[in-house]
Amino acid sequence: MVQIAVLGYGTVGSGVVEVLRTNRESISQRAGMPIEIKYVLDLREFPGDPVQEILVHDYETILQDPEVAIVVEVLGGIEPAHTFAKQALEAGKSVVTSNKALVAKYGVELTELAKEKGINFLFEASCGGGIPIIRPLLTSLTADVIDEITGILNGTTNYMLDKMSSEGADFDEVLKDAQAKGYAEADPTADIEGHDACRKIAILSSLAFGKFVDYEEIPTEGITKITAKDMLYAKKLGMAVKLLATSRKVGDAVYAAVAPYLVGPQNPLYSVNDVFNSIFVHGNMLGDAMFYGSGAGKLPTASAVVADVVDEAKHLHENLGVSLGMEKLELMENSQVTGRYFVRIRGDIQKDAGNIEKIFGEVTLVEADGLTDEFGFITTEMKQGEYQEKASGLSDVLGMIRIKD
Amino acid sequence: MVQIAVLGYGTVGSGVVEVLRTNRESISQRAGMPIEIKYVLDLREFPGDPVQEILVHDYETILQDPEVAIVVEVLGGIEPAHTFAKQALEAGKSVVTSNKALVAKYGVELTELAKEKGINFLFEASCGGGIPIIRPLLTSLTADVIDEITGILNGTTNYMLDKMSSEGADFDEVLKDAQAKGYAEADPTADIEGHDACRKIAILSSLAFGKFVDYEEIPTEGITKITAKDMLYAKKLGMAVKLLATSRKVGDAVYAAVAPYLVGPQNPLYSVNDVFNSIFVHGNMLGDAMFYGSGAGKLPTASAVVADVVDEAKHLHENLGVSLGMEKLELMENSQVTGRYFVRIRGDIQKDAGNIEKIFGEVTLVEADGLTDEFGFITTEMKQGEYQEKASGLSDVLGMIRIKD
Repeated sequence: MVQIAVLGYGTVGSGVVEVLRTNRESISQRAGMPIEIKYVLDLREFPGDPVQEILVHDYETILQDPEVAIVVEVLGGIEPAHTFAKQALEAGKSVVTSNKALVAKYGVELTELAKEKGINFLFEASCGGGIPIIRPLLTSLTADVIDEITGILNGTTNYMLDKMSSEGADFDEVLKDAQAKGYAEADPTADIEGHDACRKIAILSSLAFGKFVDYEEIPTEGITKITAKDMLYAKKLGMAVKLLATSRKVGDAVYAAVAPYLVGPQNPLYSVNDVFNSIFVHGNMLGDAMFYGSGAGKLPTASAVVADVVDEAKHLHENLGVSLGMEKLELMENSQVTGRYFVRIRGDIQKDAGNIEKIFGEVTLVEADGLTDEFGFITTEMKQGEYQEKASGLSDVLGMIRIKD
Repeated sequence: MVQIAVLGYGTVGSGVVEVLRTNRESISQRAGMPIEIKYVLDLREFPGDPVQEILVHDYETILQDPEVAIVVEVLGGIEPAHTFAKQALEAGKSVVTSNKALVAKYGVELTELAKEKGINFLFEASCGGGIPIIRPLLTSLTADVIDEITGILNGTTNYMLDKMSSEGADFDEVLKDAQAKGYAEADPTADIEGHDACRKIAILSSLAFGKFVDYEEIPTEGITKITAKDMLYAKKLGMAVKLLATSRKVGDAVYAAVAPYLVGPQNPLYSVNDVFNSIFVHGNMLGDAMFYGSGAGKLPTASAVVADVVDEAKHLHENLGVSLGMEKLELMENSQVTGRYFVRIRGDIQKDAGNIEKIFGEVTLVEADGLTDEFGFITTEMKQGEYQEKASGLSDVLGMIRIKD
């Protein structure tokens, strides 16, 4: 038998308890032993909930108990999550977390500490919720050199963009709807500004490229500038607007970004709708692969957390070699990255197209149904720096969205 | 260093050599040691190919060499693959195979033999080519009780159906095209009759449900009866025809089948096109997940084979616990499975719809553009046995396709 403690009885924490109770038998079988929750840590009381019997308010009880072999950190946020995780590892207890903020900021320190102690710090649920992506990257794609990871890593914004597209609704309206449905939080900044996706792509990129990617250095743009009008152009182009978190090798360099992209129907990410997440990976031998599923939600996230607990139970005194890289990966300058750009312009397509072509050379003009005082165009492939220089020569740019075919 | 032997220098075998050479450095790093190919076994000679230097024609050389720790079987077919794999395991050498026929028929024997010897028999490449599915099923979805696996597991037929749909071409025509492109073999029976997909779903079901599924007991229907006319109805319905290999829990029983299905746009398998494969999994906690990628092809398949080699190199004297189940899973009777059915009828919709409704109750009638002497209808949900009984009362059934929303 292995005994564990769950830190935080919120959405994910109560999911972990539920998963372990519901699938008790099959989980024991796979772990090779029963997994028992000895403590749940939470400052609150839960009268009437069976968890009350194992509820503690003081982390010291858990830290001092030599029977607790695994600590599940599902508090979220940086503190006290960081201190608690570190203390657990120092006390020889393996740690599982679903906390992307913690992993993006302190993952290197905590994985190295786990290695030193011959135990584990695992975080499958931190990226893509229930989707198995971290373990497959580390244990299945071992024959490949990964050259791209591109994901729809935030369900809230994917739901919102989907809704804007299908209903012609504007940003503020779908945000309110997402909040009413519980998909977006009262303060939705982390989702809509791309911060959440940024931390996740930083973690996945570190694992894929073997060097630590600092999330603070990833150019990050959210979806707040996307409007119902953009969706009209997308429809006309047969494309979808998706918030992508991407990193890819360009020669010896690596580029990373979070931004809205126009995605074409040939791309497997095109048809990822609603709150689903999906992670596209390209390996130099494997070619294209994609992992799809529920990127958030109580039970899917808890499922990934418990899978990590099972792995740690099976390897109680053996470090599994998970590393976010010791060396830092210097990311390529944004301005050096090439791509194509969809640009919306205030003006008259008949009168102004000539000027656009004078500046950008060959472009594809686009008119959206019902929009008369503006039009759009798509550039040929060019460096982002070059695009910005050229765009500065236009007086009436209403918006720009990058293209991902 | 770990030394390996590759049995067969065909498509996959030469891919294995290429993957190990191209990604030599990163593979060594992940395995924790260099992986060297000591022998390639093939009856043919390959003058001018560097493989010639390590080519052997007699398996005994490999079996008798204590330095060979891992044998990669990529010959395909049952014999001599089965004998060679068994002899290797008996000689204490771990085995990797991409051979679904071998695994479906002798997988239980070979995994148990590996367990007994404290070594491994791994077969990630046997299902879904390069797509990581077996390892994620066994090591990532450990918190879940799997209740459904449904896959597009054969790239040849997916390419053909896609082509029939997009070009309005008929079966024989696209088969010739697929053969010309090298997607279909000269004898395409195993693909188009569903035998290939059947073996793969048998393997995946055994792993997911923990009991051995005999592929010979899975009702299997190929795509040879699908016509260009069916595609006209599919278009009208906004659905796609896909050859699905599926198994799912129904109460305490398990149902498995391989057949063409009409798939709706809300299903993530709907947009899997071309030669790509994709495997949908539903877990009782995780919900929906899907794994997408190249289901065949030299390098994607070799990538999965080499990933297994890396895993075996890391666990040279430790059995990883892979099991296809010791007990046999008794599958549910076909006739007891419920579903909805799309049926094509020769006749006149105005005159004959009444009779259809008299037999089937409520149905949804469908007319396809350009087809005047026939029409279609979709039944409500009923048992397959009930459908067959009712359909026997119709004189002019042109075809039936099951529905998967």
